[in-house]
Amino acid sequence: SGLVLVKNPHLDLMEEDILYHLDLGTKTHNLPAMFGDIKFVCVGGSPNRMRAFAQFMHRELGLAGDGEDVADICAGSDRYAMYRAGPVLSISHGMGIPSISIMLHELIKLLHHAKCRDVTIIRIGTSGGLGIEAGSVVITDTAVDSSFQPRFEQVVLDDVVVRSTELDKDLAEELLACSREIPDFPTLIGHTMCTYDFYEGQGRLDGALCSFSSEKKLEYLRRAYDAGVRNIEMESTAFAALCGLCGLKGESCRFHLL
Amino acid sequence: SGLVLVKNPHLDLMEEDILYHLDLGTKTHNLPAMFGDIKFVCVGGSPNRMRAFAQFMHRELGLAGDGEDVADICAGSDRYAMYRAGPVLSISHGMGIPSISIMLHELIKLLHHAKCRDVTIIRIGTSGGLGIEAGSVVITDTAVDSSFQPRFEQVVLDDVVVRSTELDKDLAEELLACSREIPDFPTLIGHTMCTYDFYEGQGRLDGALCSFSSEKKLEYLRRAYDAGVRNIEMESTAFAALCGLCGLKGESCRFHLL
Repeated sequence: SGLVLVKNPHLDLMEEDILYHLDLGTKTHNLPAMFGDIKFVCVGGSPNRMRAFAQFMHRELGLAGDGEDVADICAGSDRYAMYRAGPVLSISHGMGIPSISIMLHELIKLLHHAKCRDVTIIRIGTSGGLGIEAGSVVITDTAVDSSFQPRFEQVVLDDVVVRSTELDKDLAEELLACSREIPDFPTLIGHTMCTYDFYEGQGRLDGALCSFSSEKKLEYLRRAYDAGVRNIEMESTAFAALCGLCGLKGESCRFHLL
Repeated sequence: SGLVLVKNPHLDLMEEDILYHLDLGTKTHNLPAMFGDIKFVCVGGSPNRMRAFAQFMHRELGLAGDGEDVADICAGSDRYAMYRAGPVLSISHGMGIPSISIMLHELIKLLHHAKCRDVTIIRIGTSGGLGIEAGSVVITDTAVDSSFQPRFEQVVLDDVVVRSTELDKDLAEELLACSREIPDFPTLIGHTMCTYDFYEGQGRLDGALCSFSSEKKLEYLRRAYDAGVRNIEMESTAFAALCGLCGLKGESCRFHLL
């Protein structure tokens, strides 16, 4: 049916669902009227960048006005920022798995309550590249953990639930085809490694609070490259797992900044 | 000596240390002049609350002016917000371990570069209480993971490094003594459990995207209570581990909101 699946039977029994960190709710807002026509959701870490992206989409879609005064739909919360431009929603998720996980829980329930259909969700942003040209865009086929495994481990009470982190292959190919129309952006499909830390977790020798050898770092990154990893960031496994769980067509494109 | 310890020999060999997510650096800013006299650092999730806290401290300390126009020292970055009121620094850390971990890495290096001495760092904010009166404040003696163990596991490249999560006992007692002077705030010392997720990880039956039984949830929370856990949040193990690693006197006080 193209609807968003939420596999929690309690949800439909609730009198009210408060999407606390988005400052939205099923009683306080008419979610189908506000969001029922959304077809694309783009998510990224920084609120300022997601505002700029909404303004860019506003212009690209040729919507009325210049889009400069796009309003933050979650202005009552300082946890996330949300903007819309036509059928495109642009939302920030902060940094790291727990932060994107809270946002995705509430976003996915929002799309469910709003009865949205056939939604595509794309994560955009920056990442550290691995053995690729600076300025490249990596489209993720599979998100992997720090052991290069395609899995996301979520502790549910005291059980460890392991979820798959495959992303939508057709969407990845479609995005790659789009990239061919844009010169000067080397674009490739590869695995994306997701870590729980920016410094120690990604082997940033100069930024860490502890010490480790540059030889060990190089050996680890070489093994990651051999396992198919082309970039490193901090949200992709949770993103892939939660999209997969709820039947959302999801993809992650990251710009290799450094 | 009271200085902040950073156990990474590479740090002192670097020509410049860019504290990227704080929009500060050793070459662009005179960190000793800006921060050398800081004695207390208070950290919390929400930027708006940390701004309000800086304004409150400004009034409490009787500083000149009304403190309403307190400036965000990290205004060039939308990742975190930082304010100061006399010797007190007030910084937001977003939600979850990866987010607070990035902020703490850069904050601790900031205190190191600024040659601050005898700094006390206190995490303030809200949490979910466990078997305690609503409105209580929990001062953490030990942060524990979802198996109720006093440990923080950090993947450093592909090694799992296990760090202790004990907090400063004397500081906890000192804060408890302060609370006795304030009526109507039930305050206690207890363990704080740290999870990687707000919904599934904390057994929020109504908010989760998957299903689990309320019996299992109650049984788990009962075991947590029996293990000494009095509140649940999402940052305490990383906070305790990183403070301990760098010789910072740290404590966490959480207000039980719900």
